Order: sequence, then structure tokens, then C-alpha cells
Amino acid sequence: MTEYPVTAQNRVRQISRKASYDVDVVHRILDAGHCAHVGFVQDGAPLIVPMLYGRDGDALLLHGARKARIVRLLEQSPRVCVNVTLLDGVVIARSMFNCSMQYRSVTVFGEPALVSGREQKLAAMRVISEHLLPGRWAEARDSHEREIKMTGVLRLPIDSASAKISEGMPQDEEDDYALPLWAGVLPLTLRSGELQSDPADVADMAPSQALRALANKAF
Amino acid sequence: MTEYPVTAQNRVRQISRKASYDVDVVHRILDAGHCAHVGFVQDGAPLIVPMLYGRDGDALLLHGARKARIVRLLEQSPRVCVNVTLLDGVVIARSMFNCSMQYRSVTVFGEPALVSGREQKLAAMRVISEHLLPGRWAEARDSHEREIKMTGVLRLPIDSASAKISEGMPQDEEDDYALPLWAGVLPLTLRSGELQSDPADVADMAPSQALRALANKAF
Repeated sequence: MTEYPVTAQNRVRQISRKASYDVDVVHRILDAGHCAHVGFVQDGAPLIVPMLYGRDGDALLLHGARKARIVRLLEQSPRVCVNVTLLDGVVIARSMFNCSMQYRSVTVFGEPALVSGREQKLAAMRVISEHLLPGRWAEARDSHEREIKMTGVLRLPIDSASAKISEGMPQDEEDDYALPLWAGVLPLTLRSGELQSDPADVADMAPSQALRALANKAF
Repeated sequence: MTEYPVTAQNRVRQISRKASYDVDVVHRILDAGHCAHVGFVQDGAPLIVPMLYGRDGDALLLHGARKARIVRLLEQSPRVCVNVTLLDGVVIARSMFNCSMQYRSVTVFGEPALVSGREQKLAAMRVISEHLLPGRWAEARDSHEREIKMTGVLRLPIDSASAKISEGMPQDEEDDYALPLWAGVLPLTLRSGELQSDPADVADMAPSQALRALANKAF
């Protein structure tokens, strides 16, 4: 499959020329993001919980405390909607009407299932860890059995998805280009800073190369 | 009111010591954010749409094309859940189990209503504009009547809300502090870059002071 089928569920309605249903495009945006907004229905009402995640092929992996409401609910509640949005800039047009954002956004629909089995769970936890902190899993101390048991991991096969990408310069009304107004883009990037050492680090360790590689960059 | 009442709807279940129901805390996080994830229920299924927003007292203002599905739906569909999350850092513990994020997150519940009336709509549009681009509203050309008509603005009084703030260093197991492992925090910030001029700007205008003040800073 190279494209997610376009259905009533995932069809992008507004500014559909910015939509993509390409599997690679969807995966690339998911891989670039860090925070997934997971929406579900509880007692007929909408709820949103921000969660860390990882991607394993065409599935999202989500985790939380085994006893967390979200894990218990998602285990039962069949349908979820997940959105990952990256803000890339503010498009400053000559009129407020034409102002907009540069962004990459993905919406995923599916039915999550609890990952059971120690090895499957550890593998999923590793994928989520590598997504956020590549290389750290191998350095950190091994998980205790108790910790593995206390973690709930959900696998959400991507049944349906769409991406929406907005880039480029303002598209102003023809007459507006003659106005004496600057227009353009204010770029936005989630950036990491310098690593801050835990003052409780009595051993005065230096961060590993894997961690140093994450500092001071577009994250 | 200085605190939102704690109910079954807004009570933070996980790591409740990080929760706050303080109205000022909730407002401050909303004012610092830029992208709201708006969750609602359509035909029994959850949907999430990322939207820009502004805050007017104890209400959120959201806007979209008047004919957009989200505007039409929210106009009818009474209950929404809005989440605004700011990522502030990755907390790198000695075990993966104790790794976490630094974040500020707010969840709002309420029932949106369409803003009608030209002046009320313009005032609301201005609040959303000032939230994203302070000072630009006064510089940009005045909205055309057609543009005002084409914009749908929703006012969402905050019926209920909670904040969750996670900060500080890793909290590791006592035995883990002796491990030969660096631990600490990788700070994250959404930063703006240099203003990029629209190549179609034939008048070769310079950006205003209000816009220059937005460049190269924590956004």
C-alpha cells in the first residue's frame, strides 16, 4: 500500500490541495513529531490526552502506566483519533484573512490493542524510547520486571490516515501586493538546548555521545 | 473564581501532584501556547483538529472558514475538549522507566457558540490575531466585509479545566544514583528564526518593529 484509501473518515475537507494520503508522507511526519494528541470518547464526551509515541511499521505505539485511565479506556474503547502537528512557521500576509501557519499535521484513525507478552512489550517500549532518545535504551539500566508489568503499551494499527502540509509564502489578494506592508514568514522550530546535568549526579558523569548528539539542534 | 471546581470531568488521575486547577495557571499556559487540539465527537467517533486560538477572559476563541466542517460541527455539537501542550524538555533518567517529559499542559471542557454580529466577530478575530502576532492587526489592511462573513468564530467559555505541569530533574530509584550513567534534562523550546521576506514583495518593505520583535526568540 502506498496510499491510505480516502474515505469519509480521513478525507481532508478544508484546503484539500494541501492534503496527502501518501503512506511515506504520513510516516515521515509521525517520525518527526514527539507529542501525539490522542482523542477518544468516554461516556459520549470527547477527551484528549497528549502522549509520547513511537512508530513500528504502519502502527503507532503508545504507553502509559498500566493502571492509567487512558490505557484502561483505550484497551476497551475501540476507536481513537490521533493527531500529530508540527508548527513550522507563521505566514504573515498583508491581510489578516490570508495569514496562516506553516505546518505538518497527521491524523490517524484506528483501534488500539494492549501489547501483551514480556518480549513484545519490551520491544515496543524500546521503539518509543528510540523515537525520543535514540541510543539511550542501550545505555540505561535494564528494566526491572516490576517496571515492565507496571507499563501499559498500546499498539494502534493505522487503519486510516491523512496528512496536511502547509508551506510557502503568503497568498495575498492581487490588489494587496501594492500595499506598503512587509509580508513573509516567521519560521518556527522546536529546538533543544544544552544538556542540564542532574545535580544529584554524585558520580559526575559526562553525557554519552548519543545524548550529546541531541543537544542544540532542531528536535 | 480562583480555582476551577474539581469534578469527574477535569480531575487529573495520573500523577495528581502535578495537577493544578488554578485559573491563573490555566490562563498562563493557554497564553503561552499557539496550537490548540480541539476534540469533538462526530457520529460517535472521536475527531481532533489542531486550531489557532486566543483567550478572552475565561473563554477560548477559535476560528476557521465559516463553511469548515469544524465550525459547522462545533456550532451544533455541544461538548468539546481542548488540549494545549507545551513541551519543555526531556527528562533523561538512569532507567527508561523513570524517563519522562517536562511539559505544561491544559485541558479545557466547554460548549462553544458561534460569535455573531460584525463587531463581536471582529473583536474576537483581533484577539486571536494578537495572541499569535501582537501588533500586526493594527498594521495589516482592514478586513473586507466579505472576509468577515467568510470567517467563522467560536467562543468557548471554559466550563471546566485542569493544568498539569511537569518540571525538574529525574526522580530515580535510590539504587540507580550510583550507576555510572549521566542523567539530567534536555531542554526544548519552540523558537522563531529570522523573518523571511516574501519574494513577491515588489515594494521591498522592511518588517515593522512589532514583527522584528518576534524574530529569534522563544515563541
